[in-house]
Amino acid sequence: MSKSPGEFELIARLTTGLRKSRRTILGPGDDCAIIAPPRTPQLVTIDSMVEGVHFELKWGTPEALGARALTVNLSDVAAMGGVATACVVNLAIRPGLGARFFDRLYAGLGRAADAAGVDIVGGNITSAEALAITIALLGETGPGVLLRDAARPGDEVFVTGTVGDAALGWRILAGKLRARGAARKFLVDRFLNPIARLAAGQRLARMTPAPAAIDISDGLWQDLGHVLERSGVGAEIEARAIPTSTAYRAVAGEDLELALGGGEDYELLFCLRPGHSEASLTRRLGVPVRRIGKIIRGHRATLTGGASAVPRVAGWDQLRTYGTR
Amino acid sequence: MSKSPGEFELIARLTTGLRKSRRTILGPGDDCAIIAPPRTPQLVTIDSMVEGVHFELKWGTPEALGARALTVNLSDVAAMGGVATACVVNLAIRPGLGARFFDRLYAGLGRAADAAGVDIVGGNITSAEALAITIALLGETGPGVLLRDAARPGDEVFVTGTVGDAALGWRILAGKLRARGAARKFLVDRFLNPIARLAAGQRLARMTPAPAAIDISDGLWQDLGHVLERSGVGAEIEARAIPTSTAYRAVAGEDLELALGGGEDYELLFCLRPGHSEASLTRRLGVPVRRIGKIIRGHRATLTGGASAVPRVAGWDQLRTYGTR
Repeated sequence: MSKSPGEFELIARLTTGLRKSRRTILGPGDDCAIIAPPRTPQLVTIDSMVEGVHFELKWGTPEALGARALTVNLSDVAAMGGVATACVVNLAIRPGLGARFFDRLYAGLGRAADAAGVDIVGGNITSAEALAITIALLGETGPGVLLRDAARPGDEVFVTGTVGDAALGWRILAGKLRARGAARKFLVDRFLNPIARLAAGQRLARMTPAPAAIDISDGLWQDLGHVLERSGVGAEIEARAIPTSTAYRAVAGEDLELALGGGEDYELLFCLRPGHSEASLTRRLGVPVRRIGKIIRGHRATLTGGASAVPRVAGWDQLRTYGTR
Repeated sequence: MSKSPGEFELIARLTTGLRKSRRTILGPGDDCAIIAPPRTPQLVTIDSMVEGVHFELKWGTPEALGARALTVNLSDVAAMGGVATACVVNLAIRPGLGARFFDRLYAGLGRAADAAGVDIVGGNITSAEALAITIALLGETGPGVLLRDAARPGDEVFVTGTVGDAALGWRILAGKLRARGAARKFLVDRFLNPIARLAAGQRLARMTPAPAAIDISDGLWQDLGHVLERSGVGAEIEARAIPTSTAYRAVAGEDLELALGGGEDYELLFCLRPGHSEASLTRRLGVPVRRIGKIIRGHRATLTGGASAVPRVAGWDQLRTYGTR
């Protein structure tokens, strides 16, 4: 698309000094990037963050925003058990943001890419009314692939880390919820600086049979629903097993609405044949793992031990699909 | 990123019945798509079209808009001499656009993808203030690769088709220029329904040495400047050789401002060692080819035989970089 001179200058500025692995044959600066062909089947995903929809600039630093834009994509590769390799970045820029802002955004994005072993091989800059960062990420599959459709009756359902923190953090930042001190800091940080569970996903992909898995971006209950739908199964989830953080409980008490219904945690939910303890999985994956229920025949998800906690997050009614309300 | 139920429904609706080649191992519906590893080095590009910046809905059909969003990416693969293979689509949607609109948008996108042999392997939908379509396209390199840095002094400079039509078409649609009848129809069509020169690019990539090439998305003069800058050379361009259409001349006369400075044509500009006639190249590439000048030592582009025609398109001052004003 036709560009203004300012857009050209910004592209040149942002793509100077980017990391380049041996995989990248030609980085930014031509019509396309060129990368070496992967040896295994390739993963592709795209995700976008839009100002005023997914974030407000006043909530955090440009560096954190840049890193987060990549992390939400990395999480998709983690949920397939893959290795992230290269990305292209589309930046929709609006008036009022200077070169320093974009330097900092790209510094954060670049550091996140470095840490994940990802080359930023190209990009595009366009004008828009609101800032938006859209990243397409490539990856390579590992020895096994984690698919949503692999859950079978009898499987046990696990999640990494804790859930609901990012949703609380978002509400705190948006002024919809008040919190103080360490709990506030922890929850806001969980929203602003999520971590993609790449190593955990890669380790799950070495298990036989490869587990069903998904990343928790839309909320545990909804993402579980995607696995159930694709696998043609149901699930029984134990309310008291849902892993929440100390900070979550300090702010929300025993209310599981956001632990089940809030998104943006970027933890992994996965389903394994019986026989794995939480402790052994925690050691194997290098991240705390909690068993939250089991896969059953059917097509419903039911919550036991806490019926009143079934999520009723505003604007979210996927539960109907899975028959729990 | 967290999604509303409407976004899920739209994804499901739009990704039903998409073309899937043997190359696509897993299409939309999981965290990532999976595609077979290419046999040759891979091309990656990303481009975006934003409502109110690149298009207005009233200008054309949703089908044409969907097709165009892919074509601007296909053109980047054409400019590398590659074969386009797979894409992922990020749709930023705004209130006021119904399912029927997106069905039609995706129908046009799907037809363009089919025609180019491209699988739509995945996508993402997000809310925004303005409609935006961002596509990341993958491709495979051919026997040779067309790079911007391969121009050498003595090369002759060629372009396919005619230039400036789309810029006139855009001005007509935006109400900045009046035109009637066949000329109006032709120019508007050139803007709304561009064609990526994939076959021509692939045929150029079979030549030895592989020509320098770029697609004319930002305007002939500016895109020529990219080739000169990357190659470390200059160019002498003959004003009277610039290929303009009958419609262009009917509306703009002999004024070359938009032929040189207007973007969105998606023709190819390329540089060849001497010895190729326009006629032989036209036969070989299957599209009209015009010789417009030659590459010289230096770092400037000069226009001969029409100095007053050096483009002065609003907001565009790349010429300074190349020393022509």
